[in-house]
Parts: sequence; structure tokens; C-alpha cells
Amino acid sequence: MLIVKKFGGTSVADKERILHVAGICAEEYNKGNDVVIVLSAMGKQTDVLLTQAEEINPDAPKREIDMLLTTGEQISVALMAMALESMGVPAISFHAFQAGIYTTRAYGNARIQRIDTARMEEALVQRKVIIVAGFQGINEEGDYTTLGRGGSDTTAVALAAVLRADICEIYTDVDGVYTADPRLVPSAVKLKEITYDEMLELASLGAGVLHNRSVEMAKRFGVELVVKSSFQDAEGTRVCDRAVKKENMFTLEDGILRAAQSLEGTAMEEMLVSGVTADKNTARIQLKGIKETTREIYRIFKKLSEQHISADSVLMSPNSDSTTDISFTVPRDQLKETAEVLTRYGEDSSSYLEIKIEDNIAKVSAVGAGMMSNPAIAVSMFEALYEEGISIEMIYASELRITVLVSEKDTLKAVRAIHGRLIERQLQ
Amino acid sequence: MLIVKKFGGTSVADKERILHVAGICAEEYNKGNDVVIVLSAMGKQTDVLLTQAEEINPDAPKREIDMLLTTGEQISVALMAMALESMGVPAISFHAFQAGIYTTRAYGNARIQRIDTARMEEALVQRKVIIVAGFQGINEEGDYTTLGRGGSDTTAVALAAVLRADICEIYTDVDGVYTADPRLVPSAVKLKEITYDEMLELASLGAGVLHNRSVEMAKRFGVELVVKSSFQDAEGTRVCDRAVKKENMFTLEDGILRAAQSLEGTAMEEMLVSGVTADKNTARIQLKGIKETTREIYRIFKKLSEQHISADSVLMSPNSDSTTDISFTVPRDQLKETAEVLTRYGEDSSSYLEIKIEDNIAKVSAVGAGMMSNPAIAVSMFEALYEEGISIEMIYASELRITVLVSEKDTLKAVRAIHGRLIERQLQ
Repeated sequence: MLIVKKFGGTSVADKERILHVAGICAEEYNKGNDVVIVLSAMGKQTDVLLTQAEEINPDAPKREIDMLLTTGEQISVALMAMALESMGVPAISFHAFQAGIYTTRAYGNARIQRIDTARMEEALVQRKVIIVAGFQGINEEGDYTTLGRGGSDTTAVALAAVLRADICEIYTDVDGVYTADPRLVPSAVKLKEITYDEMLELASLGAGVLHNRSVEMAKRFGVELVVKSSFQDAEGTRVCDRAVKKENMFTLEDGILRAAQSLEGTAMEEMLVSGVTADKNTARIQLKGIKETTREIYRIFKKLSEQHISADSVLMSPNSDSTTDISFTVPRDQLKETAEVLTRYGEDSSSYLEIKIEDNIAKVSAVGAGMMSNPAIAVSMFEALYEEGISIEMIYASELRITVLVSEKDTLKAVRAIHGRLIERQLQ
Repeated sequence: MLIVKKFGGTSVADKERILHVAGICAEEYNKGNDVVIVLSAMGKQTDVLLTQAEEINPDAPKREIDMLLTTGEQISVALMAMALESMGVPAISFHAFQAGIYTTRAYGNARIQRIDTARMEEALVQRKVIIVAGFQGINEEGDYTTLGRGGSDTTAVALAAVLRADICEIYTDVDGVYTADPRLVPSAVKLKEITYDEMLELASLGAGVLHNRSVEMAKRFGVELVVKSSFQDAEGTRVCDRAVKKENMFTLEDGILRAAQSLEGTAMEEMLVSGVTADKNTARIQLKGIKETTREIYRIFKKLSEQHISADSVLMSPNSDSTTDISFTVPRDQLKETAEVLTRYGEDSSSYLEIKIEDNIAKVSAVGAGMMSNPAIAVSMFEALYEEGISIEMIYASELRITVLVSEKDTLKAVRAIHGRLIERQLQ
């Protein structure tokens, strides 16, 4: 079996943890498996380097930022190779030049285009454990690029895809994907399985266990992912392409969401709602009185996407004067750029009248397959919020999730209320 | 003018110093010169990384050590590029893959074989300041190598040679080459000029200002070197190919070395003895009773050289029974390997009888052109030692230096005595 194992910064933060991770990988290797390890930078190293850069030049060229940051993973992989060798396991470390990870040009936010596996395959034939620096690539100019925060997950999935690995294990400081953040909701439950699509929604909604792009890539190439803990030997959560038909499995009885059929042993796997997430890094934008709706919307979102601003939860409401209002959310840390783009666009086209920005809000979502087909879920969710006296600023629903915008101060209360109603009651 | 400037770890140890160095380089660039900067790792970064490696695996593969260490210089060059950009100077950093510095395979002690200058030349045409990671190269397997301690000097000289730089400036924490270590001999004087050969002797004898191989390379390719301070704006010492005829310029009068002709304004430049050095990293090996002298000596030194052990100050003394004794020095930190090589060789060939090792000694040398042709110098030197009651264990003399082995405890006293006699009296 060929297994790709990815470990984040916390898992390789110091000597002890590096040796611990090496132990996990040596055990896998000694079972006769081929092992490819992908590592992030140690602990907070990336932040330390960014601070150094910031102090020298707050507006440093992105090329040089990437040149700086890529050292972090290179240190991790070299030390890991040494740790494995100390255990008698032949190992070799590769940075992006050596692993042949070619990306787009975009420094700081590059995308993998192709991977030249020649050197890695040669090392695998020699029965060496390969340790690849995550998060980094090289572009056609022969410069380092980085894949954006959490990019090591993407590296791992991409390597699993091109090397046709049997499984890609993402080790984190939590032991799997939970129905809610266990620090916020102590009653949260670990999922045994989740689909790519549900995981994508969880990731994009701030659940933070897996990098969004890595899940997309895993889905596209059919890479089986497992999220597990590098600290405990627990089973973890499997992310795969599961097609269990779940519609109409639940009904609303006495205001409580219940399974239409009795939940059997597989209850956890067939749970309708996979998780409840909160994302405070969000701001709501409302644009009022847009005239030529379709054309304008196309243009506005094109402008935003050119600036790598990801708008989410887009809602449109037509007005009686044949203009349209649009409302959407953007990550709060992109609010400044968003406002600039919109103001500039407004000046150029003078096509909408009013921009309203709210940034004291949070996005709370319930994620699961077939949400739209089960109106009972939405009803149950709104009822839970109502009972807690939480007012809903906006609702967005898709097949995979129902998102509400609430006041930021209500975030935790909302997550707990929804989790209690939609998940805990299913398990009772 | 194309100028290569090399800065050591102390010169880029923190934000302030990086900005200071960037200032020096920006000034040079703004004069209209092309500037190539070579940097070492920041401060003690290399030692920090080595300690990390040592803790994880005391016997780590050398390939991985180099993979680890090369991050140090990469951090320096990225930060320097940011610093220059903050001053409005276009800059680009390169690691060994990007600078095209190809070396031999030997991890930890590689030699530069060729440099592919295409990318650097392109950047120079674009009027960018180039910042190259010193100390590192890549071998034909596509792996990082390092050039050994002080290898950044070699990188700088090699770049100056291939890019046909007009001058190669080595910035250090001292402001030039002194006639002795000013910390040991307060009366030491800074040299305005020194020849490659004299510098080579000083470097190999532990003066430590320039890396030996860098001087050899500078000599071979006629690269003009200047050693100067990155902290003070002083003139520094020029290392070049000077052919001033110095024989018989000095005589011994009343036990004092004196110039035969009056020392004029150029006194410093024409001083016979350029420096006095001490090297405690030395051990003396004596092999007694070697039979087939020439063949055996060839074989012994071949074995040592295969282990990269550099024997110095080799003396032979024939015995009456037609055997020969050999005595030589090796760096004390290579004593263990040396003893192993010799013991193994002795067992295999049973060709010599006795190995004697002394490691509580130091090598003290007077360096200057034409030493052998001026017996007065040797006499003066031995006399100075005699007057201080220092006994000489061994004498080795070449055209460029006279070296004595003294007891380690006498090192400082010997340096001061010799410096006082050979240099200070010339200047009186």
C-alpha cells in the first residue's frame, strides 16, 4: 500500500513531536507499506518569519515572502528525515524543486498545475520514505510559490493523486471531524464518515480541519482522505464519495427532528446533519438599487474574483422599481479590499446607489447532504434560534447547507442551540 | 562597475543590521553600479540548526544536514531583498538552484564546479540587485550541498569570477587584515595590502578573516578582494597579486630586524612580515621508523587526503638504520579520524612502528613573502621566543612562512613576542 501522511505544524513543533511522528511513519513503513510524508513548518515558524518580514518591509514583494516562508517546511522535512534515519528507516527529504511541484505564478496563493514524479518514484523504488515540504511549489520562472494557508493539505492530496496512493491521511491536533467545534460545543460528536461535499461546506464555513482546496482536489481525483489525530491513536474521520440516500429519512415530530426510520447501528454514518459551524471572519455586504441586474452582477463578482475575494451566501431581492438589491458575505479580513473594489466599480459605472456593510455578524451553518429536500431541518433550526431569542439577519440555503447570519455576540449560543436540536436529538 | 559584496552572519544578525547592510548596498547601486550580494545565515542560525539536528540524530545523514542548513542563507537573502525593496531598490534573491551554483557531490564540503549565470545576468540587465545565498550549491543529483564553514566567501569569489566583477568586497566584523589578532595583540596593525599567497598562509594558519578556498580561487581567477568592516566605513585590506621584490630589504642589527633601505611612505605595503598567527586547533603526529620511505609516505598522505584530513608542516628526519621518522600537524578536531586512518593503515601494512600524538600544542606562524630568503627573520623570531623562555617543539619554514610548534599554554606569549620583534620594530 502507498500511504500519504500529512502532519501540520503542531505535530512537528519540537524534537519530541518530530520523533513521535517519525515513530508513526516508521511503524507504517515497517508493515511493508510505502510512505510519503508531507509536512508543514514547525509550530508557529511561519508566523515568526512573517513577523520578521513585516518588520523589515510591511509591503514586501510577495515573491520574497514566499522565498522566506518556504524555508519553514524545508527545516521540518530535513529534521524528519534525520529522525527516520535514526530509527533505521531510509528516508529522503524533498523541497518543491526536488519534488517537482509546479504551480501557477501567483505568489502567496498559487495552484498546483503538475507534478513531475520522476524523482519521487525513483526513491519509492529504493524503498525510501519520502518527506515532502508542504505548502510550496515552483512556478515557471523557477521561483518558489506558496499555496496559501493550509496549503500543505493540498500538497498531500495532490501527491496522493499523482502517485496513486491508496489513502491520504491528514493528521491534525484534533482526532477527526466533529459535528461542531468541541471547544464550543462539548456535546459535539466525531463523525466516522463524511462526504467530500459536506466536508467542503464545513471547510469553507470555517470548521478549519481541512483546507478547502485539498477537499476539492480529493473529490476530483477520488483520493480517499482520513482526518486523524497525531497525538492519539484514534480512528479518525473518513472523507469519501458516499451516496447514501438520505432524503425523507427525518420528520418533524413535536418540534423535534426525528429519523423516519429507526436509526440503526450505522446511525452516525447516516446522520442527516453532519455538522454545525460558526465563522466570525465574515462581513455582510448589501448593494441596493442595481439596475441592469444580470450584467452588473456578473461584472461585480468578476471584479471581486479578480482580487481573490470569495463572496458567499449570495442573495438577490428584486425591488418594485425594477432594480435589484444584492446581499452577500465576504471574509472580514478581505473587507477593506472588497470595499475598495466596490467603491471603484461604483464610481466607474455609477450603476448602484448604496453600499451597506455590516461586520459585527457571524455565519452559523448546518451542513449535511440533502438539506433543501428536508424542509423540516430548516424549520427545526429556525425554531431553535427563535427559542433562544436569537434574531436571524439573513438566511441562505443550498442543497448542502443552511446558513444564517446572526449578530456576532450570539454566535456561540446559536451554534449550541442548532447543534442541540439537529444533532444531539438525533442521537438520543 | 560590477561589485560583489559578501556579508557574514554577524552583519545580518538582526533587522537593524540587515537594514544597515541594505543601506550600504543601496548607496552602491544608486551610484550606478551593478551589485551582487552574497549572504551567510543570520547570526548563529547555522549553529542553532546544527544543534536541532544533533538532538534528533547525532549521526544524521549529511545530505539532510545540508538540506537543513541551506535554509539559513535563504532566510537572509529573502529578508535582504525585502529591505532593499523598502528603499526603492529593485532586488531579487536567489538560492543555489536559482543562482545555478553546481558543485561536487560531497555534502558538507562540496566544491563549486560551474555556475550557470543565465538567470543572474538577466536580472543584472534588468538593473536588479542580486542577492545570492552563500555557502550552498547543488550537486548533479539535484540536492543541496554546502561548501564547508566560511563557504560564503567562496561563493562570493566564484560569482565575482564568473560574472567578471570588478571587485569582490568581503565585509566582516573586523575592518581588515591585521598583522595579528588585535584581541590578542593590541599593537597589531591593519594591512593596506596583502598578496593572495600571504593571505592564504594567514587563512590556513587560523587568522580566520577569509576562507582559504576563497583566496585560492581569487588568486586563480585574478579576482581582486577587499576585506572591510560592515560596521565602520574604513578602507579595509586589499588582497591582490603584488610582486614587490622584498628580498634583502631587511638586516639584523643588534638583534633587531631593520629595513636595509629606509622605510618610506609605503612602509606598510612593503612590510616583509605581514602577520603573526596562532592556531590552537592543531595536533602533532609523529610516525617513527618508516621503512620504504617514499612509497609509504605517499600512501599515508593519500589515505589522509581521502578522509579530507589536511596534514600541514610535514617534516622528515632520516634515521641511521635507513628508516625515516615523519612529523606533521593535523587540525585537532580531525585527530580522531587521523588516528583511525593511521592505525588501520599500520595494521594493514605493518610498515611503521610507532605513532606519537601530541595535542596540547599550538602552531604560531610569521607570514610574509620571501621568508626563506631572509634568514634574519627566522633568527629574530627564534630569539624572541628564547628570550621569553618559550621552547620550540618543531620548526617548519617555507618561502611564505615560518611556523613553530609551541606548548599550548605559551601561545599568546609567543604571538606577542614574535609580533613585537618582527612587526612592531619595523614600524618604529
